[in-house]
Amino acid sequence: MLTRVKSAVAGFMGGIMSGGNSGGVGNTGSELPLKFPYMRPEFLGLSLDEIECSADHIARPILILKETRRLPWATGYAEVINAGKSALNEDQACCEVVVARRRPMSYCPPSTPSKTPTAKRRNSLPNGEGLGLRVDHSKLGEDSEGLVFHYWALFDGHAGSGAAIVASRLLQHHIACQLQAVIEILRNVASLPPTVLGEEPDNNPYFQGNTPGPHRALTRAASLRGASGAPGSPSNTPPPPRFFTEKKIQHESLVIGAIENAFKEMDAQIEKEKQIYNITGGCTALTVVYLLGKLYVANAGDSRAIIIRNNDIIPMSTEFTPESERQRLQFLGFMQPHLLGNEFTHLEFPRRVQRKEVGKRMLYRDFTMNGWAYKTVNDEDLKFPLIYGEGKKARVLATIGVTRGLGDHDLKVHDSNIYIKPFLSCCPEVKVYNLQQYEHGADDVLVMGTDGLWDVLSNQEVAEAVTTFLANCDPDDLHRYTMAAQDLVMRARGVLRDRGWRITNERLGSGDDISAFIIPLMYGNRQP
Amino acid sequence: MLTRVKSAVAGFMGGIMSGGNSGGVGNTGSELPLKFPYMRPEFLGLSLDEIECSADHIARPILILKETRRLPWATGYAEVINAGKSALNEDQACCEVVVARRRPMSYCPPSTPSKTPTAKRRNSLPNGEGLGLRVDHSKLGEDSEGLVFHYWALFDGHAGSGAAIVASRLLQHHIACQLQAVIEILRNVASLPPTVLGEEPDNNPYFQGNTPGPHRALTRAASLRGASGAPGSPSNTPPPPRFFTEKKIQHESLVIGAIENAFKEMDAQIEKEKQIYNITGGCTALTVVYLLGKLYVANAGDSRAIIIRNNDIIPMSTEFTPESERQRLQFLGFMQPHLLGNEFTHLEFPRRVQRKEVGKRMLYRDFTMNGWAYKTVNDEDLKFPLIYGEGKKARVLATIGVTRGLGDHDLKVHDSNIYIKPFLSCCPEVKVYNLQQYEHGADDVLVMGTDGLWDVLSNQEVAEAVTTFLANCDPDDLHRYTMAAQDLVMRARGVLRDRGWRITNERLGSGDDISAFIIPLMYGNRQP
Repeated sequence: MLTRVKSAVAGFMGGIMSGGNSGGVGNTGSELPLKFPYMRPEFLGLSLDEIECSADHIARPILILKETRRLPWATGYAEVINAGKSALNEDQACCEVVVARRRPMSYCPPSTPSKTPTAKRRNSLPNGEGLGLRVDHSKLGEDSEGLVFHYWALFDGHAGSGAAIVASRLLQHHIACQLQAVIEILRNVASLPPTVLGEEPDNNPYFQGNTPGPHRALTRAASLRGASGAPGSPSNTPPPPRFFTEKKIQHESLVIGAIENAFKEMDAQIEKEKQIYNITGGCTALTVVYLLGKLYVANAGDSRAIIIRNNDIIPMSTEFTPESERQRLQFLGFMQPHLLGNEFTHLEFPRRVQRKEVGKRMLYRDFTMNGWAYKTVNDEDLKFPLIYGEGKKARVLATIGVTRGLGDHDLKVHDSNIYIKPFLSCCPEVKVYNLQQYEHGADDVLVMGTDGLWDVLSNQEVAEAVTTFLANCDPDDLHRYTMAAQDLVMRARGVLRDRGWRITNERLGSGDDISAFIIPLMYGNRQP
Repeated sequence: MLTRVKSAVAGFMGGIMSGGNSGGVGNTGSELPLKFPYMRPEFLGLSLDEIECSADHIARPILILKETRRLPWATGYAEVINAGKSALNEDQACCEVVVARRRPMSYCPPSTPSKTPTAKRRNSLPNGEGLGLRVDHSKLGEDSEGLVFHYWALFDGHAGSGAAIVASRLLQHHIACQLQAVIEILRNVASLPPTVLGEEPDNNPYFQGNTPGPHRALTRAASLRGASGAPGSPSNTPPPPRFFTEKKIQHESLVIGAIENAFKEMDAQIEKEKQIYNITGGCTALTVVYLLGKLYVANAGDSRAIIIRNNDIIPMSTEFTPESERQRLQFLGFMQPHLLGNEFTHLEFPRRVQRKEVGKRMLYRDFTMNGWAYKTVNDEDLKFPLIYGEGKKARVLATIGVTRGLGDHDLKVHDSNIYIKPFLSCCPEVKVYNLQQYEHGADDVLVMGTDGLWDVLSNQEVAEAVTTFLANCDPDDLHRYTMAAQDLVMRARGVLRDRGWRITNERLGSGDDISAFIIPLMYGNRQP
């Protein structure tokens, strides 16, 4: 299927392989070498020739795993390129079993909590190599020194494929690196994580009634005893020590924190390495980590993961878009108006305001509002709205349609000096699913897909398609999840007719890149 | 029941009636006259003597409606004072039928969208009198000039009762005032609200393909057509006019916007009038507006509303506390560190950091995180955490346990010049319930309660108590909701035993002020 239309893509691959910028974001860094060459997911095992042929926007071949290859848990995967919106497939994927080994802590770059608005991040991983060692999963369990986790990830690039490729190669190492700092703690399930590392609980004055620090601290803590919201409790009486309780942090929270900080470090590495490499564009990131019996689904962007269990649908992510993050973005624009460059207004209007409407009353929405009201239009309102458009057409600063992800450090509003990055967040939302709390059958799966899939198929349609497909397969056929993924991507792409790609009921198929994992859940408690 | 323990409260009422400050927030404004005297809800019709006796912290009499009085929809109400945490009952309540009359728009203070961080609000209502006219509800429907809405509200004051009293007297007028601006639009259900007032759709170039404004606007809009997130579409080709679509705003959104802006105006009025009146403290606000077949439940604070329908529980509000709003507050502290006065850190720690722990690794959480990670403690981390404590003991700036509401403009961190108000929001979250979509029986109700109720009773316990109580009443007895409210408040207060107030299963009863409305829903489609 890959060779059918080779001729159709002749001519542009030279540009591709040398890092041609397909997104039109400008030519920043294009004279620098690539960090990694353009590629398709490593686990597909494609030759350069095959990679070239996969980029056929007319045939749009669906790529799946070769029969000789197998992913952990017999995971199914399929992908297809877009119908022409960009020369390359800007989706990327990764699936690995990773070992985070015990190491001296200093080896890992410290996560960097924000200290001041101008704080710069410190050192990042140079390359990620060797930090998390990929292992042959047949040898799992032999490693008593480290912590093994399974990892699946989808990245949806924009304005170039550089960031997506870098993230697909390195994010798992950042996760491994963050987990390294807490390996001992995670393995010791008998006791909760200590608040301070290397301190005996008995040495902690907070549990003994000693005077904990300066007088001011006592005054502050005293108000904790006061009536709800009433400050000014008497400051001359130290409170009884039992009020100095500690928050008890669960092991699960450490894993969530590790993944959150790994995304941050990945983004910082991209920013840093853009100085020496050509890393184009940005990307969304959706990752699944399986560790110690639980699935951690982390999402920064508009990809989506759902669990299908016994025909029920359990959403495992929410999308981050200009519409879903409107209030956060407007709040930021309101707080730091210089980020709007005197060209945008943080207020939202139903459409662009015209000069002749100054003085009239128009519908608007401020960052505190979910409803709408009328305001008298003034000159300030003639600026372009920070959030504009609806649904898939909604944009931040008239530029970008997704509000979380990695990269995009150079992205500016067209023909201006206004940076988009301050409005984007690299921080994922992490949802946890305890695999051990449920019995899972062979048809219970987690489906991950880029927005190309979900734009045209609802959760319900995806669940029905997957469930129906799997029900018609031999439950012992390890290739069934790959076939189901292929079927799913086919349903979202559709078939080429006179007037474009069409799916069921003559609806339009997705012209976007589409990538999907189908992960069977029954392997969570038994290593295949 | 009110006269039983008159002697127990002798002595302090003089101070009360002249506006004594019970919250210890300082003496700001105490030499000024009161805006309104201390009172209990007007609809209770209490004499001054009865008001005095209601403040008995030992007997804690439960106040209900007199038999001769009746609220709209036969609403039930009950309240009880706290067990001594403040001299007065700092809860307040209001229930009215209000008419928003058609008036020239200029009569209403304009809502003031935030322009810059330093923008000051413009003129506010002087007193609210006459803006929304209270009506005898037996005359409902006679008013063809205005828009009638039903209104229920609970306010839970802190650090004094002033703000709660002012809000309980005036907030409904601000809502009426905001609704006045859209009366014509709301009455015309046949067409959607116009984007601009006073403009014919035919004159709108956005629907005609005319050139809409300057070249720059075209360039910006052009990127809307681009691939997801890909900026830089060609700027020399004007896009076809069909991309200049408008957002369609529903009528419901206008009501939500009106309520949101009414809260903002109420807060601005309190701020302004503190210059000339003694208005102590702050308050939460939970309001229910019934308008044109729908219930709008607006909440700013930690009160709660639930609907009990056919034994199902439908939450109609969420609480705003230091824990639920942690990330918003930390983000603000991070963005505007001067608000922390060099004494607080926006980072969260499980407990106060000690000086001797500098250099060690401690658990922390930044504004982007839901999980926890370890960081090396530095001097900066010795500052007090912006958010500190757990559950009901959680505080912002070591001072306040609720993060939305009205008032508190003067509130400062004890013994400092750090203001709390920038971290508080006066904006409610508004949830909508379409009464006309369901059939409601006599036992289907909306329950509103201040946190004194919900601190000791779960949603489930409240639903069971109310449902069981109502099932044992005559369905035609209009007094049944009052009795049910009394029963509910009794269950939350408990009875006085040797060791304090006790409820079912020997649990501790609430020592807080407790107020509750029980609103039957079947009257939504028929005026009683």
